[in-house]
Amino acid sequence: MQIEKEILALNAYDPQAAKPSDEQTRRAVERRLGTFGQGAVLFYREPIEAVSAEGVWIQGADGRRYLDVYNNVPSVGHCHPRVVEAIRQQVGRLNIHTRYLNAVVDDYAERLLATLPEAIGNLVLTCTGSEANDLALRVAQAATGGTGFIVSEMAYHGNTAAVTDISPSSRPGRPLAPHVRTVPAPDSYRKPDEHPGEVMAAAVMAAIKEMASKGIRFAGMIADTIFSSDGVHADPPGLLAPVIAAVHAQGGLFIADEVQPGFGRTGDALWGFQRHGIVPDIVTMGKPMGNGFPMGGMALRPDLLAAFNARDKYFNTFGGNPVAAAAGLAVLDVIREEGLIENARDVGRYLRDSLREIANRHLAIGEVRGAGLFIGLEFVTDRESKTPAPETASAMINGLRERGVLIGAAGAYGNTLKIRPPLCFRREHADTFVDHCDAVLGQIRG
Amino acid sequence: MQIEKEILALNAYDPQAAKPSDEQTRRAVERRLGTFGQGAVLFYREPIEAVSAEGVWIQGADGRRYLDVYNNVPSVGHCHPRVVEAIRQQVGRLNIHTRYLNAVVDDYAERLLATLPEAIGNLVLTCTGSEANDLALRVAQAATGGTGFIVSEMAYHGNTAAVTDISPSSRPGRPLAPHVRTVPAPDSYRKPDEHPGEVMAAAVMAAIKEMASKGIRFAGMIADTIFSSDGVHADPPGLLAPVIAAVHAQGGLFIADEVQPGFGRTGDALWGFQRHGIVPDIVTMGKPMGNGFPMGGMALRPDLLAAFNARDKYFNTFGGNPVAAAAGLAVLDVIREEGLIENARDVGRYLRDSLREIANRHLAIGEVRGAGLFIGLEFVTDRESKTPAPETASAMINGLRERGVLIGAAGAYGNTLKIRPPLCFRREHADTFVDHCDAVLGQIRG
Repeated sequence: MQIEKEILALNAYDPQAAKPSDEQTRRAVERRLGTFGQGAVLFYREPIEAVSAEGVWIQGADGRRYLDVYNNVPSVGHCHPRVVEAIRQQVGRLNIHTRYLNAVVDDYAERLLATLPEAIGNLVLTCTGSEANDLALRVAQAATGGTGFIVSEMAYHGNTAAVTDISPSSRPGRPLAPHVRTVPAPDSYRKPDEHPGEVMAAAVMAAIKEMASKGIRFAGMIADTIFSSDGVHADPPGLLAPVIAAVHAQGGLFIADEVQPGFGRTGDALWGFQRHGIVPDIVTMGKPMGNGFPMGGMALRPDLLAAFNARDKYFNTFGGNPVAAAAGLAVLDVIREEGLIENARDVGRYLRDSLREIANRHLAIGEVRGAGLFIGLEFVTDRESKTPAPETASAMINGLRERGVLIGAAGAYGNTLKIRPPLCFRREHADTFVDHCDAVLGQIRG
Repeated sequence: MQIEKEILALNAYDPQAAKPSDEQTRRAVERRLGTFGQGAVLFYREPIEAVSAEGVWIQGADGRRYLDVYNNVPSVGHCHPRVVEAIRQQVGRLNIHTRYLNAVVDDYAERLLATLPEAIGNLVLTCTGSEANDLALRVAQAATGGTGFIVSEMAYHGNTAAVTDISPSSRPGRPLAPHVRTVPAPDSYRKPDEHPGEVMAAAVMAAIKEMASKGIRFAGMIADTIFSSDGVHADPPGLLAPVIAAVHAQGGLFIADEVQPGFGRTGDALWGFQRHGIVPDIVTMGKPMGNGFPMGGMALRPDLLAAFNARDKYFNTFGGNPVAAAAGLAVLDVIREEGLIENARDVGRYLRDSLREIANRHLAIGEVRGAGLFIGLEFVTDRESKTPAPETASAMINGLRERGVLIGAAGAYGNTLKIRPPLCFRREHADTFVDHCDAVLGQIRG
């Protein structure tokens, strides 16, 4: 797990290393370090100063424009005019908490719940996915009387104290919290099991049993339904069906963390869990929900919210404010009207096919996988040993940056590119990306 | 503590009680209950549907406008044109995380840190005050090696799992978490000690000693520097000086929670802790920071951030985005250019004087206290026994609502009105408020 720190070191700017080559960036980096201090983390060996953005493009202060193949928050496109206009109108009209009634908020809540399975009938709006997951854990505890949670080995579920405890990828080199157990994520490349769902379900059962032997009662399992921080594992569709059955059989709840796969990214449907044909007990959401406007949420079965409310109250000052609701409504409109789920499916498939084509020439590519516009591109030193090659991923990240393409890495070994551009990414953008990948791979191995 | 639930029941809409009298509100309430379910909490026996707001006024769907004497989030005034314009411009230009450089973010970070004592040299931007406090606890734990925290008896520090543990007012009827101890807030009315700072310092020392006897190492004390949820206790200035000395003597950190008193509200200075002449180790902020745009932050000594970063990393996706930074900059500009700190001081004093004047006629008023535009108005059944009168507070809240004035309550007994209007509240608004208070009190007792 220690490797996570190395990944960061490989892909991020290192203040101890050489200073940026141009004067403006050098000054900007100094300003940032002067205020954010040790908390400052900047992408790339040579950081980028951004001044504006539109669609799939970010404009740098260096006069260059960068193709964004990484950012999943501005999911319907950077500064989408529809979302921008919705925010501009509402922010001048009313921005207040939910203890007064407001029709915009109710419109949004109804629209959002209508996209979810009928059993998931209530909604709590927060400001971030972290807040939503933090609350979901408390709901699961209240509803089950348990405290134990199961997550995947490299799970990331946010940044509060409680969700950091259930995020092994945020605790490199440290033992798991006592109430947390992990199960391996599916891995079509290194563990091509015939029945990965059954394998995971068995691991879940074993973890619950082991927990019980330590006197810890099982509360639930939380999973990012595309296992992004484990390296992007979407396949096979349906794999979570036996897993949720095991969770329910043991009296636990299944929390689908849709912060990454939600809002159309997987190209199958609006929600990542729909790829697996399951109905979670709780669904949490964040990042793309407002296309960058800070908002998150937890949708759940009404009986679970009632169980929580019997003991606790939850109120979020900014959560569900009308500006967030207006942004959220615009995002849902744009996804539907611009056919972004279909686009994610089409361009995603096209992009995976194109990457597999260049994989014929570039043996460093171990596997191309994913769903919709969430693709993992895994690098190895050779295809026989499948030895992870994080240095190739790092060289790709920094090489692509030099060529004006923004990308990042994920996975336990840091050797997998996390390809998740705004959903308005078109075939021509995919072509540009693949051409640059081809060129950088040629340089690395040349 | 069970009384907190009763306060809510007294002041909030009760779905089990009579339905709202007009058809539109009835439908709006039904919609809200249909999505938010048991999590729906609406102010007043007769809820209000808000459609727009400006300055100190909220426009209702019922065609009435309400004088806002309660909301401290739209602190420089509802929909302040300067803040609205800053958001409108930036949201169409760039809205991205802090792993790319951006000058607006650096401008804000520098401007904000310049308002704080020099020792507090670093900043971490979050989306909410809850996130900031959650992180501050982790920093204090990392820097001290301790886990124990001291808070005031009715403290409220936010809504994540970790900060709910240190928020006794959120846990009515439940024992404190094992790592938490409370000390009484100062109380000029019921405990008019000559030296409340020394009294609190002694209580802190005793709590640390008791903690140690249970094997719990002290990490720090966190306090809202105006003790709002304890009933608004600002006096005497300087009272926290012996307290922070005690905390430091025992190796702990002092976290000033400025979510309520910060950004000019107390009329003394930009920060509540400045009233007490202290330099905290960590300062957290939220609510008024972006005048409603979801943002929060933690400013701290660089050595503390370094201690945290040696073990943990923290990244907040939406935290410090350029739209939040633009909103934050506009808020700082407006506070200075419109002289809102001076206005809070002047109008606050005028309002307290006016309330004390009507207290000559209305014996239900036990005490008028506070600083700047954060005022506590405490009701009692009689002045001899000082028996708390939450029913009077509730009658005031609902009576004022009927007269078009918005207010709420706080404190252990729920008998104290929490008066904290937007900081652009003028003397004429104070007159209106006091006239209505006078009238409602006359009706209640009449």
